[in-house]
Amino acid sequence: MKQEVRKQIGVIGAGNCSNETGVLAEKVGKEIAKKGAVLLCGGMGGVMEAAARGAKLEKGMTVGILPGTCREDANPWIDIAILSGMGHARNVLIAQSSDALIAVSGEYGTLSEIALGIKMGKPVLVLDCKWDIEGTYRVRSAEEAVELALELIKSR
Amino acid sequence: MKQEVRKQIGVIGAGNCSNETGVLAEKVGKEIAKKGAVLLCGGMGGVMEAAARGAKLEKGMTVGILPGTCREDANPWIDIAILSGMGHARNVLIAQSSDALIAVSGEYGTLSEIALGIKMGKPVLVLDCKWDIEGTYRVRSAEEAVELALELIKSR
Amino acid sequence: MKQEVRKQIGVIGAGNCSNETGVLAEKVGKEIAKKGAVLLCGGMGGVMEAAARGAKLEKGMTVGILPGTCREDANPWIDIAILSGMGHARNVLIAQSSDALIAVSGEYGTLSEIALGIKMGKPVLVLDCKWDIEGTYRVRSAEEAVELALELIKSR
Amino acid sequence: MKQEVRKQIGVIGAGNCSNETGVLAEKVGKEIAKKGAVLLCGGMGGVMEAAARGAKLEKGMTVGILPGTCREDANPWIDIAILSGMGHARNVLIAQSSDALIAVSGEYGTLSEIALGIKMGKPVLVLDCKWDIEGTYRVRSAEEAVELALELIKSR
Repeated sequence: MKQEVRKQIGVIGAGNCSNETGVLAEKVGKEIAKKGAVLLCGGMGGVMEAAARGAKLEKGMTVGILPGTCREDANPWIDIAILSGMGHARNVLIAQSSDALIAVSGEYGTLSEIALGIKMGKPVLVLDCKWDIEGTYRVRSAEEAVELALELIKSR
Repeated sequence: MKQEVRKQIGVIGAGNCSNETGVLAEKVGKEIAKKGAVLLCGGMGGVMEAAARGAKLEKGMTVGILPGTCREDANPWIDIAILSGMGHARNVLIAQSSDALIAVSGEYGTLSEIALGIKMGKPVLVLDCKWDIEGTYRVRSAEEAVELALELIKSR
Repeated sequence: MKQEVRKQIGVIGAGNCSNETGVLAEKVGKEIAKKGAVLLCGGMGGVMEAAARGAKLEKGMTVGILPGTCREDANPWIDIAILSGMGHARNVLIAQSSDALIAVSGEYGTLSEIALGIKMGKPVLVLDCKWDIEGTYRVRSAEEAVELALELIKSR
Repeated sequence: MKQEVRKQIGVIGAGNCSNETGVLAEKVGKEIAKKGAVLLCGGMGGVMEAAARGAKLEKGMTVGILPGTCREDANPWIDIAILSGMGHARNVLIAQSSDALIAVSGEYGTLSEIALGIKMGKPVLVLDCKWDIEGTYRVRSAEEAVELALELIKSR
């Protein structure tokens, strides 16, 4: 009766974002849920909240790995809250626990996660991101991001 | 459309355990699932595996916060794997992310989690445990453990 | 020109303590410094501050592994401040980085560190401590604590 | 009798490096020691070892925050070993505990630390580094790196 292992896809991005970026992140969350994967994120606002909302609108499963110790800090679309109490070190937990990472826009925190993800050997897909880092896959739509992520995971 | 927040109950105990302890841990897992709570554990063998199996037999949701970085190390009953890569420090994540903790038997790792849980102000229930630590609730059955845990969480 | 590796002894105990406990902790710090070992602690007040002060009075070296991210939170006797930003998880760092641990009095945080230390296979010496945990060495003076700690480390 | 707080400067870079990069890192370590600051690093080989050796040749103080749990993994120039057992998350500890960071060459691990350092508001100086990240200070010599680091810390 061993159950199937669901893929875990991390969505990373800033805690504050423009409407446009939020729409993009929501689409990424929707696609992840439609494909039956679990969405991992930092559990806070901005890109994290938009992506989690997208996943819940498609009845997906969402996990937030929070920097603090308080459940109430999680955005309302988080099913499972991991309260790390570890501040920035929670970024490492997200990168490590994800089979693939999708960065949506994002600032320095996102850059640190992109670099960590590559170092850990994870596929890192970037969408509308100012950082052009060798070793990432630049994609142009939420659909392409999630499809390519799942394809890259499978072929490992 | 804000969704209801499900309670997260951590089950802690040794990575190797007797059949008897395993039966008890499985019952705890079943009760947690029946009550609609999420089971958190360390994701490995022994008490962690028995509790997760119990929860899945009742179609519950299980989260494993692993010490290592490898998804394959999780027992087969884990839905969501958090790969901490932090060794013993993952115990802190479990205690911190749980609304209440239930210790089933257990050795020094469990004792450290019991102490952390109390320090963090979480209800800590102990079942068949050699440690008699002031501040814990000693219970005699899986049903009592889960019922009391949920009651103690509610009244906070 | 390989330099000698200095032993690192962790002193654990509460962040608030009685005068009596403070005097004891200061003696432990002094003994550690006299023996040429490095004192590790949590870097805050109470037992941690008293022990660090003792070590500095004997011109020893002190390291504080702090829960927060702010250098100014360290007590004034800390030479090296490790700013973990990891809250309770910093206890794991202290236990892991110490060749032996000496607990002076202490509450639940100390208990969690005692348990972690034993689990990690470190000698754990307890002084004037209400916890009577199998696997620890109960000692009666600061001198005995530090001497026994160094002897136990050597014989490994 | 409050003692002076010594500045802590983190040196980051790859665990394997060319001779040329090693020479540069050693010079950085020497400069840090000459200025009376403490050198923080990851405690392993390559840039970390070269910088620590440089600091010890000038009788400085060196701290290694290691990814693993084993003292013997530290390079021979490390005075104080913090055994994090946290793998990549130890990078966060280094960035957080440093008043300023100096990156010498370096790959993805270094990039993640550069990004973390900027996010944490620390001055980040880069020497001979392929990453050209907005918010860092590009310097051309070990002397310039350490001097500018200390100046930037002072003016905060």
